[in-house]
Amino acid sequence: MTNPRVFLKDMFDVAVRAADPSRSLAAFLPSRPKGRVIVVGAGKGAAQLARAFETLWEAPVEGAVVTRYGYAMDCEHIEVIEAAHPVPDDKGLAASRHLLGLVSDLREEDLVVALICGGASALLPCPPDGVSLADEQAMNEALLASGAPISAMNVVRKHVSMIKGGRLAKAAAPARVVSLVVSDIPGDEPAFVGSGPTVPDDSDRQQALDVIRQYELELPASIMAHLSSNAADAPKPEDSSFSNNETYVIASAGQSLEAAAQWARARGYHAHILSDSVEGEARHIGFMHGALAREVSLKNQPFEKPAILLSGGETTVRLRNPAIGFGKGGRNSEAALAMALDIAGQKGVHVLMADTDGIDGSEDNAGAYSDGSTVARLRLKGADARDYLDRNDAWSAFDLIDDLFVTGPTGTNINDFRAILIED
Amino acid sequence: MTNPRVFLKDMFDVAVRAADPSRSLAAFLPSRPKGRVIVVGAGKGAAQLARAFETLWEAPVEGAVVTRYGYAMDCEHIEVIEAAHPVPDDKGLAASRHLLGLVSDLREEDLVVALICGGASALLPCPPDGVSLADEQAMNEALLASGAPISAMNVVRKHVSMIKGGRLAKAAAPARVVSLVVSDIPGDEPAFVGSGPTVPDDSDRQQALDVIRQYELELPASIMAHLSSNAADAPKPEDSSFSNNETYVIASAGQSLEAAAQWARARGYHAHILSDSVEGEARHIGFMHGALAREVSLKNQPFEKPAILLSGGETTVRLRNPAIGFGKGGRNSEAALAMALDIAGQKGVHVLMADTDGIDGSEDNAGAYSDGSTVARLRLKGADARDYLDRNDAWSAFDLIDDLFVTGPTGTNINDFRAILIED
Repeated sequence: MTNPRVFLKDMFDVAVRAADPSRSLAAFLPSRPKGRVIVVGAGKGAAQLARAFETLWEAPVEGAVVTRYGYAMDCEHIEVIEAAHPVPDDKGLAASRHLLGLVSDLREEDLVVALICGGASALLPCPPDGVSLADEQAMNEALLASGAPISAMNVVRKHVSMIKGGRLAKAAAPARVVSLVVSDIPGDEPAFVGSGPTVPDDSDRQQALDVIRQYELELPASIMAHLSSNAADAPKPEDSSFSNNETYVIASAGQSLEAAAQWARARGYHAHILSDSVEGEARHIGFMHGALAREVSLKNQPFEKPAILLSGGETTVRLRNPAIGFGKGGRNSEAALAMALDIAGQKGVHVLMADTDGIDGSEDNAGAYSDGSTVARLRLKGADARDYLDRNDAWSAFDLIDDLFVTGPTGTNINDFRAILIED
Repeated sequence: MTNPRVFLKDMFDVAVRAADPSRSLAAFLPSRPKGRVIVVGAGKGAAQLARAFETLWEAPVEGAVVTRYGYAMDCEHIEVIEAAHPVPDDKGLAASRHLLGLVSDLREEDLVVALICGGASALLPCPPDGVSLADEQAMNEALLASGAPISAMNVVRKHVSMIKGGRLAKAAAPARVVSLVVSDIPGDEPAFVGSGPTVPDDSDRQQALDVIRQYELELPASIMAHLSSNAADAPKPEDSSFSNNETYVIASAGQSLEAAAQWARARGYHAHILSDSVEGEARHIGFMHGALAREVSLKNQPFEKPAILLSGGETTVRLRNPAIGFGKGGRNSEAALAMALDIAGQKGVHVLMADTDGIDGSEDNAGAYSDGSTVARLRLKGADARDYLDRNDAWSAFDLIDDLFVTGPTGTNINDFRAILIED
């Protein structure tokens, strides 16, 4: 068979390519309309999406997208506006109004392309009459502190907004709206990405009030008053304004992992996605991946060999005791080193853990390779794997045995990529 | 369908019953010999095994087992000796010699029953000629600090011993030896449990030297000299002394999880064992189980619904910032609370995490139940799940919503039991 590391690297490339905005946009470009083409959008990656879109479109286009301060990129035709994230500011409010203005007074032959990705909700504050921006900010802070899941938070947000919950798309009627969504949320439900400015859902204001009661949220009186009025009702999916609209999730961690899994399956592996949204401390997530890989390797369960196990998400690193010093870390390198300790001595298990943006931590590596011989190979260099892990110094450990994984910036980001190859 | 919690509790009982020494011994009792019956044994649970054996045997029996200081229990016929663990002491050395003496001068019609469980290796020091107990202790400490996997450590140990690596069984020849092994190691290979005093394997002294070189162990000169001599060669499995012997793994975390999985499969669930040996910090292991359960619940992958996910092992708890105080924790309760945060709002996912000995932490609960409503139900009581987790106070959180899982002492211990039920 192929060298396992070459296989893992190729699979990483497949996952990253599936999330490359220019490639994924190309596959979902709408047909040319008779009328005007207006691009609107928001999110941390909105500028990148806008640039990719206008390059691919090769025809007149106008519009604006909103991104986070410092995340702007030059576009030729589309205006790129910066605003505050995660707590909204008045630049975001002005931007919301600007987007609503851009899609007003359109005709049926016009096309609105909405480019929506993670962060859009905070970047597009737009409180209804009687509610101030400060009130919307206070609501957002209360939601973020509540422990409520994103689905519950979005139910509240989209009923306290003039732009969320499909209202931007409704404002564009009778023009056709094609929403191209990069999902950063578990489950990839497009109405939940950025509170769905162009994607209505079935929730109603009563559900918003239920969430507020359930999580004992203390919200400004203006917001409670708004939610008691008909004005809070967001448009429903069956609203005729949406009859010509289309929505596509063009990229997500889940889609990239699925692309990688299919690629591996075509090469004879039993490939499985464990999760597209793992959270938790990197090293312990590494240990758990190790435990699973050992079970597969030793007992051929819960997955049959030869197997590929994939997972995504965003782990965290906790800096340890400052008395022993901090090294050069990175969450994926740290997880790979922890997994190496868990599978030490185990044959036939090969690991690649890397950040899909190409930069894992403070150094220039995307992540690292490890396997059952990592601990022993470190020992031959006089290095103790656990000491390096204790110092958050995974980079130095992998540098010592030349197992760093270096790609350079990839131009996209769907967070972590973890892949384990378990030989037959 | 049944109440999910009743189902999870019944499955826990199945797992615990499968590890109950009296039940598991009963299934593997050897046939009566014409001659004497000698019991030998060692390990942290050896006294419990000895008592269960003599109760079940209902015929004359003699012998001795070695357990850890404070772990002795009264037996009627079998002597229970206490010695040091994990660093061996001279009581252990005397006990090893006593066991070897018990099986000397036996005849072909005699039967030796060896009761072996985790901890036996340290409890049975028995250095060869020219090696002192202090040398064996130094070797053991070097091995434990080396990061070498248990399989590698045991290769060294069994070639520097007069009792390990099948030598106790060889001393018993021509008597028949039946080894009844409770496994505490991943993979349940009986020759690795307690360095296999009655279970030979294929390793040789050259492999022991390889491990020493690979992990750069600095061992006493007496041990290096011993390993260069023929005396280090442990008997091989094909040695005729072993031709009448039998070895059974009568209980292990893996077997208990398998019993639980089969029980669930018989009731229509797709039941899967993730691992019998998960290590890592309890809360992060909880998050990872949450991520997997969400993937199954939302996408019906990598396991089909309705699914049962099982895992075992031994997680750890890290006490957080003392400034915010410590609560009443327990590793399984903490993992269940962390998982509740991960799956907050998710419907159809039910969790039971508990210690199989029936006592999770400082309180009288074995563990706790959680699900997608745990965080919201805590909030209704004015409690923030994350605050409780931050204070290592999972017990108080679950006590507040009456979701503690209480069994009382179970009489056995195969470490953690984690079960997740994911509805269709």
